[in-house]
Amino acid sequence: MERTLIKDLHGRIGKEVTVKGWVDARRDHGKLIFIELRDGTGMVQMVALPSHAEAHAAVETVRAEWVIEAKGVVNKRPEKMIKADSPTGDIEIELLGITILSEAYELPFEKDTVVNLETLLNYRPFTIRSNRERDIFTLQATLLEAYRSSLRRQGFMEFQAPALVGGDAEGGAAVFKVNYFYDKTAYLATSPQLYKQIMVGAFERVFTIARIFRAEKSATTRHLSELTQMDFEMGFIDDERDVMAVLETVIREVVAKAKEHAAIFARFNADVPKADKPFPVLTLREAQKILAVPESADDMEPDHERRISEWALKEHDSDFVFITRFPTAGRAFYTYEAPNEAPYSRGFDLLFRGLEINSGAQRIHNYEEMVKRIGSRGMDPKKFSFYLQAFKYGMPPHGGSSTGLERLTARMLGLANVKEAVPFPRDMNRIDTLLSENLDD
Amino acid sequence: MERTLIKDLHGRIGKEVTVKGWVDARRDHGKLIFIELRDGTGMVQMVALPSHAEAHAAVETVRAEWVIEAKGVVNKRPEKMIKADSPTGDIEIELLGITILSEAYELPFEKDTVVNLETLLNYRPFTIRSNRERDIFTLQATLLEAYRSSLRRQGFMEFQAPALVGGDAEGGAAVFKVNYFYDKTAYLATSPQLYKQIMVGAFERVFTIARIFRAEKSATTRHLSELTQMDFEMGFIDDERDVMAVLETVIREVVAKAKEHAAIFARFNADVPKADKPFPVLTLREAQKILAVPESADDMEPDHERRISEWALKEHDSDFVFITRFPTAGRAFYTYEAPNEAPYSRGFDLLFRGLEINSGAQRIHNYEEMVKRIGSRGMDPKKFSFYLQAFKYGMPPHGGSSTGLERLTARMLGLANVKEAVPFPRDMNRIDTLLSENLDD
Repeated sequence: MERTLIKDLHGRIGKEVTVKGWVDARRDHGKLIFIELRDGTGMVQMVALPSHAEAHAAVETVRAEWVIEAKGVVNKRPEKMIKADSPTGDIEIELLGITILSEAYELPFEKDTVVNLETLLNYRPFTIRSNRERDIFTLQATLLEAYRSSLRRQGFMEFQAPALVGGDAEGGAAVFKVNYFYDKTAYLATSPQLYKQIMVGAFERVFTIARIFRAEKSATTRHLSELTQMDFEMGFIDDERDVMAVLETVIREVVAKAKEHAAIFARFNADVPKADKPFPVLTLREAQKILAVPESADDMEPDHERRISEWALKEHDSDFVFITRFPTAGRAFYTYEAPNEAPYSRGFDLLFRGLEINSGAQRIHNYEEMVKRIGSRGMDPKKFSFYLQAFKYGMPPHGGSSTGLERLTARMLGLANVKEAVPFPRDMNRIDTLLSENLDD
Repeated sequence: MERTLIKDLHGRIGKEVTVKGWVDARRDHGKLIFIELRDGTGMVQMVALPSHAEAHAAVETVRAEWVIEAKGVVNKRPEKMIKADSPTGDIEIELLGITILSEAYELPFEKDTVVNLETLLNYRPFTIRSNRERDIFTLQATLLEAYRSSLRRQGFMEFQAPALVGGDAEGGAAVFKVNYFYDKTAYLATSPQLYKQIMVGAFERVFTIARIFRAEKSATTRHLSELTQMDFEMGFIDDERDVMAVLETVIREVVAKAKEHAAIFARFNADVPKADKPFPVLTLREAQKILAVPESADDMEPDHERRISEWALKEHDSDFVFITRFPTAGRAFYTYEAPNEAPYSRGFDLLFRGLEINSGAQRIHNYEEMVKRIGSRGMDPKKFSFYLQAFKYGMPPHGGSSTGLERLTARMLGLANVKEAVPFPRDMNRIDTLLSENLDD
């Protein structure tokens, strides 16, 4: 018989079905044996009655995470047995028979046990099956697709930026070295920035979902060695406000999509972000004034980011707040500075619940100005001549921004460590050596 | 005045507009000066009349690739001046004035000049602006999104596979080494295979758009050192035919979307692929019989792939053909072999116009069998214990496949070299050293 997915069982009430999935749990209640069956679309309760002796005996042998095929009849549950918090809480499958597709060894611990991060990741192929982890990555897939979808709707074209690059283009971040052909050294990209600017010259509005790499020896709760960056860049802007407007629309549409996962937010005791009102915009100096901290620092400290986010929520009912006009000296070399706005640049950060999740700017578009800026940062413009072609051959005023997928996910659900928002995170110690941690030796 | 995009000009006939873009070409016809203006959405002809003296004088100074803002009136063209092959061939902008946003240096060659691959890539920030290159990457963005969209519709969830891995999991391909933290060696992933199998354990149907890396010293027209792989994996299959059915649906939906770019196919003298009829399926031995070549070889040679594709087109009106049942020994270690089908595996390749663009299989799902297979290939199962957890804790029969985005794009348009289907390709010599080729020294 054709398989019925658990999400489709409501259409088959009173009928015989075949379902397939993992045994999420087995509970023996004397004569009745209950199985919670999990497939890719949901969870359903099945019950083995003593009257179906063969099925009853077979079910007695199965244990958690065994993979089975089951035949049964979909019944409506009696009113008083309905579980309102489950999509299938009003039905139950009366088991007629099962086939075992795959057995499982004894589990290292019960599937939904709360474990520390180290254990969570050491046993990732098992822990990824927990309700919590499935929630995180289900939401993450929605965020990513909503981000892309909003950019497409706003006229942006997707392209593939390289991960292997010839040098550390940003001239700052710690970079991983790769042994390339002929004993040459290549590097892993720390950003798709220079490539997306080149693409603006051809397509005007582009985005890329880039894999980027950071070799900083850092072990904070917000640091990853490999991450997913959602980058866009656009031509013909007046100033950074045009970029911020596109980004604000993207974020609002992403949040609207995230709202469809209200049940996930509820399970994490997290609120769906407030993003309906216009995001407040503060210059760095204005933010420092509000915080009553010295108006001289060139960037925000983590504590300042947290406090200004609290202010934005209280005063503007917004979980998002833009900070603009950072001093140019502290921003990436390609950041635009208008002559009458010096020493402040047209860069901005977007804070979400106290964490910077996005950084963006208007960029320099004039060739001579770009050459001068590269020189003024102690770098050799000749070494940028590939990139500089984009400016030499006519570049419009442009800008863009970059959002970290993992930080966005983590902040949405209030995860303590951004590593929880990566299925297979990389850090100073973790790289799945030979896909093995030799846990069982 | 608010900017009008070139694609929206038809709605503004008879009205004054502001357009912005690149000067694609300037043609002086005595008193009349024509400008072809290009923005991210299209191209339009503008004309400067001597009667608007100031605009006329300004337009005389601009050259190809200058970036300008122009004011003018949108006029319908007289019937006999209509160019049927252009979306804006029936309109023209009468120039009232221009502002120069960015000048361009003298170009290395005219923009749409046909150049060799070396020159094309050396001048990529400029050549990417050509009509041909914009066509290629416009189509590619559509292919990628259509691929994802079809998989989402078929119940697949997207996830992010790591590019940094602890070892060469496939135990075969040439691999790039990365200097990781604490003098450890990491590697660049040659496939997201093992990770997507792990994810099947949690989500049943998953896909990932993975950046993968191949360190083979190979310089063929089908080889890249960094590529984009569109990978999916699904649980609860009967055999590889279930995977092939999903893939065939994906390909058919991708081709249907590609059809919307009929004009691009026309410009490349390429036919939209034939994918409406069921894709023929041949075992390797059947294919060899048709080709009248020895039925002993364990794989297809490039010439055989070309000839069997010609057969499929002629006999089955299909640009796609599946080849199945390759000997297990020549396939990846995790490939499933049914006892009664030995020595043939449940792997398959999908050929598109003579080129393998996809490889897939049913995989081993039983833990003991997987351990045995790893050992039989001379590898140490202990070194796979992270991966093996997925099998130890209950894995359904599953399979999946992997399509190269660049090969698919190249084959659609009949590009001679797959590098033409990558905006910034990597090969043995090309890595954009410091984003510079020092072209001008």
